[in-house]
Amino acid sequence: MSATMTRSGQTDRESRSSRPPRVAMVGAGQLARMTHQAAIALGVELRVLADSEADPAVTAGAAHLIGSPESLGDLQALAAEADVVTFDHEKIPPEHLSALEADGVLLAPSPAAKLFAQDKHAARRELSARGFPVPPFILAGTRDETERFGDEHGWPLIGKVVRGAYDGRGVFELSDLDAAVRALDEVGPFLLEPRLELRRELAVLVARSVTGEVAAYPAVETVQRDAMCREVLAPADVGHGLAEEARRLALDIATGIAATGIVAIELFETQAGLLVNELALRPHNSGHYTIEGCVTSQFEQHLRAVLGWPLGATDAVAPAVAMVNVVGPDDGSDPAARIEGALSVPGAHVHLYGKQSRPGRKLGHVTVCGDDLESARAAARRAAAALEGSS
Amino acid sequence: MSATMTRSGQTDRESRSSRPPRVAMVGAGQLARMTHQAAIALGVELRVLADSEADPAVTAGAAHLIGSPESLGDLQALAAEADVVTFDHEKIPPEHLSALEADGVLLAPSPAAKLFAQDKHAARRELSARGFPVPPFILAGTRDETERFGDEHGWPLIGKVVRGAYDGRGVFELSDLDAAVRALDEVGPFLLEPRLELRRELAVLVARSVTGEVAAYPAVETVQRDAMCREVLAPADVGHGLAEEARRLALDIATGIAATGIVAIELFETQAGLLVNELALRPHNSGHYTIEGCVTSQFEQHLRAVLGWPLGATDAVAPAVAMVNVVGPDDGSDPAARIEGALSVPGAHVHLYGKQSRPGRKLGHVTVCGDDLESARAAARRAAAALEGSS
Repeated sequence: MSATMTRSGQTDRESRSSRPPRVAMVGAGQLARMTHQAAIALGVELRVLADSEADPAVTAGAAHLIGSPESLGDLQALAAEADVVTFDHEKIPPEHLSALEADGVLLAPSPAAKLFAQDKHAARRELSARGFPVPPFILAGTRDETERFGDEHGWPLIGKVVRGAYDGRGVFELSDLDAAVRALDEVGPFLLEPRLELRRELAVLVARSVTGEVAAYPAVETVQRDAMCREVLAPADVGHGLAEEARRLALDIATGIAATGIVAIELFETQAGLLVNELALRPHNSGHYTIEGCVTSQFEQHLRAVLGWPLGATDAVAPAVAMVNVVGPDDGSDPAARIEGALSVPGAHVHLYGKQSRPGRKLGHVTVCGDDLESARAAARRAAAALEGSS
Repeated sequence: MSATMTRSGQTDRESRSSRPPRVAMVGAGQLARMTHQAAIALGVELRVLADSEADPAVTAGAAHLIGSPESLGDLQALAAEADVVTFDHEKIPPEHLSALEADGVLLAPSPAAKLFAQDKHAARRELSARGFPVPPFILAGTRDETERFGDEHGWPLIGKVVRGAYDGRGVFELSDLDAAVRALDEVGPFLLEPRLELRRELAVLVARSVTGEVAAYPAVETVQRDAMCREVLAPADVGHGLAEEARRLALDIATGIAATGIVAIELFETQAGLLVNELALRPHNSGHYTIEGCVTSQFEQHLRAVLGWPLGATDAVAPAVAMVNVVGPDDGSDPAARIEGALSVPGAHVHLYGKQSRPGRKLGHVTVCGDDLESARAAARRAAAALEGSS
C-alpha cells in the first residue's frame, strides 16, 4: 500500500501540484479513447499502451507508448512516473501484473481483483465460494466430467474458454457429448455450464475507489445479438425490487473482491432469480450510456476511483436512456462516411471510435435520452442503422 | 463557394470516406480544447494553430502546428488539407483571412462575418445600419467629437479599443473630457459609448451551418465581475417574452451577417429594451454550460455547423443550469491541486483547461444542472470556490 500513500499523501502534494495527475492505461481501444475525453476535463494526463498509432485512444490524442501488454518491459515503461496503472482490456498476463505490483506500482484494479475478469473459472469458483449466486459450472477437463455434467443438466451445454473470451469469441454451444469431446481436444479444459433460460441479461456498474468509497449505477438491460452486446436500456425494466437486488449484489461483489475503478457485473435474470455471469474490471460497454445519461460518466468515474478522488453522482439525468452499438457492416463500408444521417436523428449522440471498418467490429455507438425507453430505443436504432447503412 | 462544394459534394464522398473529416482551428486555448473533446466523439480530426506545446488544446491531444496567427504562411500551412478553417479567438489579421479566402480556403466564419467580432466599431456601424438595436456610439478620434458626445450623453462614458479588447482588457471608464483626451493620446481612436444602466447582460448562442441551417440556444444571463464573464445562468430569468425576443434578435443577426459556426450575441437588457453589445464568432464562455446542460454542446454544434452537417437539438436537459468560471487566485496557487474539494460537491462538473495559474486568468469552469437556478448556482459557486482556494 506504500504506492497509495505516496500518491495521495500530503507529503507528495507539492510535487503533484506542479504537474497533472498521470493515469496509465494498458490498451488504447475505445474505452481508453473515451477515458481520454473524460481525462481532458479533469486535467488528468492519460498515457496509454497502444498497439499502433492508429489505435482509437491514440488518434484521440492520448499520450502513448507503442508496445505490447505481453511485454513486462513495456508495462514497466508505461508505469514509470504514472500515479496509477489501469486497464482498457483483460489481455495482460497475470504474472506481469503481479511483477508490477511487487515493484510497488499502484494497479487499479489489483492483480487479484483483475483475475475475476481474466479467468472465468477462477471467478466462478471464488464468487461461488463467497456465497454469490452463479450458474452451475465445472471446469471440464475430461470426457467423464463432461458426461456427468451433461447427465445432470441436459444437453445442449455452453462451453467458454477460461481466458480470452470476448464478445462471443471463445463461447460455444455444445449439442452433445461428442461435440464436447471435440472441443476438449481443440481448446483443452473449458468452463462448462447449462444453457440457461434467461428472462433478460442485466448489468450493474459499480465504481469503487482506491479509498474504498463505492457508488453503483442503476441496473440496465443489455441486449445481445450474435453473443455481442448490441443495445443497453437504462434503467432495466425489471421493477424496483429486482433492480435494487441487482444493485446490492453488485455492490457486495465489488466490495467483496476489493475491486478498484469501474467494475461491470453482468447478471442473468432467470426464473430462479439473479445469477452472476461475469465481471469486467474496467469501463464497460454497458456503461457507455452514462456519458450523456448519468450525472457522472463511467469514464470520469473510473478516473476518480483510480485516483482516489471523491466519486460522482450516479443518478440518471433522464427517465430513459438507450444505447445502440454501431457495428461494421458486411460490405466493409465505413459508418463514418454516413454520419450525417445519424446526426439528423433528433437527440442522437453519436460516438465514433476512429477504427477501421470490418464486418462485425464495434465501431461506435449512439445514445439517446428520452422520456420512455421505447422512443429512445427507436431513435438510437434509427441513428445506428443510418451509420451501418441498413436504414 | 467552390470549396464548400468540393467538401460536401457527392464527387468527393469517396476520398472523404478514406480519412476523417479535418477541421483546422486558429488558436489552441480552452475553446479549442473543448472543441477537441467534441471532435473525438464525431470522429473529426481537429488540427490547431498553437503558440506552444503547453497550449490547452495541445495538452488535450489535438493535432497541432506551432505558429502564429500573424503569419500568413503559418495560416496557410494550417489550412492545407483541412476541409474547413475556424477559430478559437479573434486575433487574426483580417487581411490574412481575406488572402486565405482568395486562395479558395473555406473559412467558417467568413472574413466578412468574422469582422463583426474583430472590429467593435465596424460591428456597431453595420449592425446599426441594418436596423439592429445598438447602444449610442461614435468612433472618437478628436477632442471635439468626444466633447460633443459627452455633452449629449453625460459623463462618465465608456471607451473601448476597436480591436483586441477582451475580458475587460481594452475597456475603460472615462470620468471626464480630460480623461478621454488622455486616452486618445494613448490608444488613438476608440469606440465611445454611454455608461448604460443595465438590468442584466444576456447572451444568445446561435449556430449557423455553412448550409444556412440555423439553431438558437435559450437566452442566458451572463454575470460579469471585473469586466470578465464569471457566471452564466441558464435560462435567463427574464420571462418568456423577452427571452424569445432575444432569441429572435440573435437569429436575425446570425442570418443577417451570414455567420457560420457558433456566434454568441451579447446583449444589454436596459429599461429601453435589448441592445446588442458585441458578437463573438466562435464558441463562447456563455455556452460552456451547454456541455452538460443542453442536448448538443456548443462545441459539437460548432463542428456540425462548419462541416455542413445537420445541427443538433439545442434544448436544455435540466430546468436550470449554472456555470461559474474558475479564475487564478491572487496567491498564484494552482486550482488543479484542489480538485478533490470541487469533485466532492454533488453534481459539479469540473472542467480544467491545463493552463498555468496566474492571478485573474480563466483556468477552468464548473457547471451544475439542477431544478432551480438558486441551488445550481450555489453548488457551482461552492465547487469553483474550492478550486480557487476561497471556500
